Amino acid sequence: MSGITTEPVGRKVLHENEKLAAGLRRQFAERGVLCLNLISAPGSGKTALLEKTLAALPAGSQVAVLTGDIQTDNDARRLARYGFPVRQITTAGTCHLDAAMVRRELDAFDAGSIDLLLIENVGNLVCPTSYDLGEAAKIVVLSVTEGDDKPLKYPGIFRKSELMILSKIDLLPYVPFDPAAAFANARRVNPQIEVLELSSLTGAGFNEWMRWLERRRSRQ
Amino acid sequence: MSGITTEPVGRKVLHENEKLAAGLRRQFAERGVLCLNLISAPGSGKTALLEKTLAALPAGSQVAVLTGDIQTDNDARRLARYGFPVRQITTAGTCHLDAAMVRRELDAFDAGSIDLLLIENVGNLVCPTSYDLGEAAKIVVLSVTEGDDKPLKYPGIFRKSELMILSKIDLLPYVPFDPAAAFANARRVNPQIEVLELSSLTGAGFNEWMRWLERRRSRQ
Repeated sequence: MSGITTEPVGRKVLHENEKLAAGLRRQFAERGVLCLNLISAPGSGKTALLEKTLAALPAGSQVAVLTGDIQTDNDARRLARYGFPVRQITTAGTCHLDAAMVRRELDAFDAGSIDLLLIENVGNLVCPTSYDLGEAAKIVVLSVTEGDDKPLKYPGIFRKSELMILSKIDLLPYVPFDPAAAFANARRVNPQIEVLELSSLTGAGFNEWMRWLERRRSRQ
Repeated sequence: MSGITTEPVGRKVLHENEKLAAGLRRQFAERGVLCLNLISAPGSGKTALLEKTLAALPAGSQVAVLTGDIQTDNDARRLARYGFPVRQITTAGTCHLDAAMVRRELDAFDAGSIDLLLIENVGNLVCPTSYDLGEAAKIVVLSVTEGDDKPLKYPGIFRKSELMILSKIDLLPYVPFDPAAAFANARRVNPQIEVLELSSLTGAGFNEWMRWLERRRSRQ
């Protein structure tokens, strides 16, 4: 929605958010919930990735999804078809989720019954970067149609993410995009970042993502 | 970068911006400059569109470009090759351009010598919407890889734009995207919005865009 140009107010808002996020992080740890915060530009395929992930999980999995949108509950409706609890946060113009929004929604889940919380942030490669949601890890999704220079142009989110998922690799034959360059650019910003590539349309690379998720759940 | 959660401050910042933008708008009108503000998600093809536009303009055209990025001057370097004046605004984390940034850069152009100013905003479908830059019109660019539901999910920018450019139509055979649905969704939000579709890669639809630009310049 808007950017803070008056620094002291910006810091105050972010500080308040960080206190709330720290509380959430403690709560997730106590309850054994792995919380992952998915961030990308609009249309990079976060919802399609989550749809395919939910479809691949065994029926008894203890998973819940929070999905953020500025308007509409399209994503929540898409995600609800897989039988897991899904809650929509409609931000009504705000360009990111914040910890207070997540906390408000958490009571709606039976918190004792989930061990994985997937948060789909508002489609925005900038603002969500600054708002900690108490997650164990941020995951940045970059689609191959967006250009392999994006990690350098939007370094904040690549710096803060544990994993970069390169999505829509089925389109690689049709776009000027070099995955090796994209990964190298991401590593220039964040040498520790892990990388995966996949297509939610064809399923290519999906096993690697599900294995990453399993490993991350076991070591949380 | 960040969102304002304290409303009075948000309004004050926006009000300040609006005063500056009104001054810019008067200045553009007095000097006969048509200013267009291009807004899209990261990677929708704003820079490619501008590159092809600059390449198509006659050598003596009185055109200048301002390009906004959070980091890097990649876009400015791409655009400078066409022989027209290009200025980079690196926002260092801020998620949008504002009127003060534009005003600072304007002095660098010989303002008497241009009649078209193309502004490429920071890649973000949300925050730039709220910041008037004194432009005659906002243009929203949506690529076909982003999904035809985007006008409903990010209504603000579609409501405020005079023109919607559907980009990367060369990829239509490979993505689940219905242009008619995208246009219908945009018109649900803004019945007056004009629409164009093009591919900067193949040049399809480019003549229509150049004609739109010519008409807009003649009637400013």
